[in-house]
Amino acid sequence: MARDDIDPTLLIKDMATRARAASAVLARETSARKASALMAAAKAIRTAEAEILNANEQDVAAARANGLSPAMIDRLLLDSGRIAAIADGVETVAGLRDPVGMVIDENLRPNGLKLSRVRVPLGVIGIIYESRPNVTVDAGILCLKSGNAAILRGGSEAMRTNRALHAALIAGITEKGLPADSIQLVPTTDRAAVGAMLVAQGMIDIIIPRGGKTLVARVQDEARVPVLAHLDGICHTYIDAAADPAKAIAIAVNAKMRRTGVCGATETLLIDQAYAHPAAVAGALLDAGCALRGDAQAQRLDPRITAASDEDWDTEYLDNICAVAFVDSVAGALAHIAAHSSHHTESIVTENAATAEQFLAAADSAIVMHNASTQFADGGEFGLGAEIGIATGRLHARGPVALEGLTTYKWLVRGTGQVRP
Amino acid sequence: MARDDIDPTLLIKDMATRARAASAVLARETSARKASALMAAAKAIRTAEAEILNANEQDVAAARANGLSPAMIDRLLLDSGRIAAIADGVETVAGLRDPVGMVIDENLRPNGLKLSRVRVPLGVIGIIYESRPNVTVDAGILCLKSGNAAILRGGSEAMRTNRALHAALIAGITEKGLPADSIQLVPTTDRAAVGAMLVAQGMIDIIIPRGGKTLVARVQDEARVPVLAHLDGICHTYIDAAADPAKAIAIAVNAKMRRTGVCGATETLLIDQAYAHPAAVAGALLDAGCALRGDAQAQRLDPRITAASDEDWDTEYLDNICAVAFVDSVAGALAHIAAHSSHHTESIVTENAATAEQFLAAADSAIVMHNASTQFADGGEFGLGAEIGIATGRLHARGPVALEGLTTYKWLVRGTGQVRP
Repeated sequence: MARDDIDPTLLIKDMATRARAASAVLARETSARKASALMAAAKAIRTAEAEILNANEQDVAAARANGLSPAMIDRLLLDSGRIAAIADGVETVAGLRDPVGMVIDENLRPNGLKLSRVRVPLGVIGIIYESRPNVTVDAGILCLKSGNAAILRGGSEAMRTNRALHAALIAGITEKGLPADSIQLVPTTDRAAVGAMLVAQGMIDIIIPRGGKTLVARVQDEARVPVLAHLDGICHTYIDAAADPAKAIAIAVNAKMRRTGVCGATETLLIDQAYAHPAAVAGALLDAGCALRGDAQAQRLDPRITAASDEDWDTEYLDNICAVAFVDSVAGALAHIAAHSSHHTESIVTENAATAEQFLAAADSAIVMHNASTQFADGGEFGLGAEIGIATGRLHARGPVALEGLTTYKWLVRGTGQVRP
Repeated sequence: MARDDIDPTLLIKDMATRARAASAVLARETSARKASALMAAAKAIRTAEAEILNANEQDVAAARANGLSPAMIDRLLLDSGRIAAIADGVETVAGLRDPVGMVIDENLRPNGLKLSRVRVPLGVIGIIYESRPNVTVDAGILCLKSGNAAILRGGSEAMRTNRALHAALIAGITEKGLPADSIQLVPTTDRAAVGAMLVAQGMIDIIIPRGGKTLVARVQDEARVPVLAHLDGICHTYIDAAADPAKAIAIAVNAKMRRTGVCGATETLLIDQAYAHPAAVAGALLDAGCALRGDAQAQRLDPRITAASDEDWDTEYLDNICAVAFVDSVAGALAHIAAHSSHHTESIVTENAATAEQFLAAADSAIVMHNASTQFADGGEFGLGAEIGIATGRLHARGPVALEGLTTYKWLVRGTGQVRP
């Protein structure tokens, strides 16, 4: 069943060939047919609840036997509510605006040629993820909605659950006439299959890793296929001299503590030397249960603040820990961010509009905010409907990647017999 | 002077560090200041004509001594007219619309957050090219106009000319206060410097090769930095059953023969079995001096047509040679293109609008045309003002890459104290 006997390079080549054929069909499907297929998939997931839960029980039992941590088991675990939420998510994506066919711009040339740039799917997308089985569905349907074929490679500990979810997805979309190869699940737990995906240039158009830093780092290091990802979310919140004290506290506490494990959580608090109420911000974070690691000046704010090491400025804690540094005005904040940011999300708190605009213009990150919590760094919060990930690279798509980020464009040129002089 | 004693990895690291610092300055320069610097650079090139011609004479003499082909020497050679054309090109780019700061879209969220996506420069761009010295100027100024720092690595045979052109460029832009490191020329002819550029991930944001297939293939094979390029331009012109006979002849002859050495030249002519006048098209091409290599059916059109081998369908001739195949309707043409295209440019000749739209939708290439010559595949012809190259990949930019393709975007979020529930 696990098909671990198959040569991974041949396996991925075969899957990619079938994905390419499916992508050619998907690229020309109408929005209505894709939406109808997704609605059928949602229904099929609800119908298959018992099979999915049964498969998940086996995965969870094996995970417990293998000594996986409670946190990992929680990521793996499904129940009725979680399956319903997965199906709800499919219906939400079914209703999103389809980017395929959208005209980006048009241009009538003096010689009468009519040019237009039209959005088309990327083609074949590889998704490499870990133990959360919902990614099987979430990633698969975002690819399908945007007209792409998907090759999914989930974590081995979730293999039975992923297969059950995948079977339901395929049952739904094939019922509406879409190709079964639109969404394929790599049928082996052999890690060499991941390696084969990463070097499948020309066969897989883009790889999107979903998971922890170790996974993302491996993908970025080994991939010859382009990768959309973020390795770190070392986000900064800067409290300017002209910050409103109440906003400073509310934003700092929310940016750090709302959920400490998300990539948009603030990891370093920067405070202007000239800000009048730094102890109140630090105290609010400490009182909220956050450990603070500060530079020499920050340590004097509160005896509970310990000394930061050089490493702290480059650490994504994903925990209730925050580094705190004093900086000399917005220029100092920008210099600290330029030196330590992972180019994910930065925020300034200030009532000075000119300072805010300076920060927005100069901070070189995918997302730059003014008077808002860095925890808003999310495709759903940005109104994109759903996101497949957040990218901190500079090519193709930056920040939250949703349906549009899974497309490219082509140039259509409509003439009446023009030849070039 | 050639600095071939320097470790190429350290050299590129040093250049990239200086480029990154320059790019941070350039990213915030106004359009007016960038345009003014480019106008000064154009003037400096005109002023330095004698030095440039002197350097070029030395390069050309060395090239002759080294036995370079007349075609290569012509690519290398400058004269007064060519220098004036280079300076004219700088002035044209100075006047183009600056993409930096353009708002792609805006979105007011229900919680009051104002989102906007704003174009920003990519950062540091590496250009690797061969013997045409004009690329030193063309590529450098397109990068500068779009707010990027450039690292240029030209061919060793043009080194003296490139240095003279580069010195004039830098004299012009520094006169207007822009950083001297905005456009850097790799000072060594050591080929290892190219290798060092290709693996400078995180230091160089994108590599654009300009030159022959050997260069592009090496760059694509070795690069870990993302590459924007096209390896081949295996472009197709398809004559549909419903083609207008006069347009069919005019477009086929122009698409193939206007200039055979450009990447948008048609390399394969596909003719519908049901087209009534195939011999007239073939005859016109033959009479225009084009050798035709046909499948069995095509060979019967004219005794001058020789037999095509399997390789012909995958060959970019860049010469007055054309492959000719009969296909069964637009579906057959699309199948041939799917099997053999390099995803550059395809064109259909037909008076049937529905067939045309089918072809435009289904042909998976960067540029797809109806009743127009594939030789229009060019940034200038597309109204982009200037192009740095044509990309056949699917990520980031596709087709002619001009100023917009040298930018990315960031998300700006303007709030009034919002925190995430």
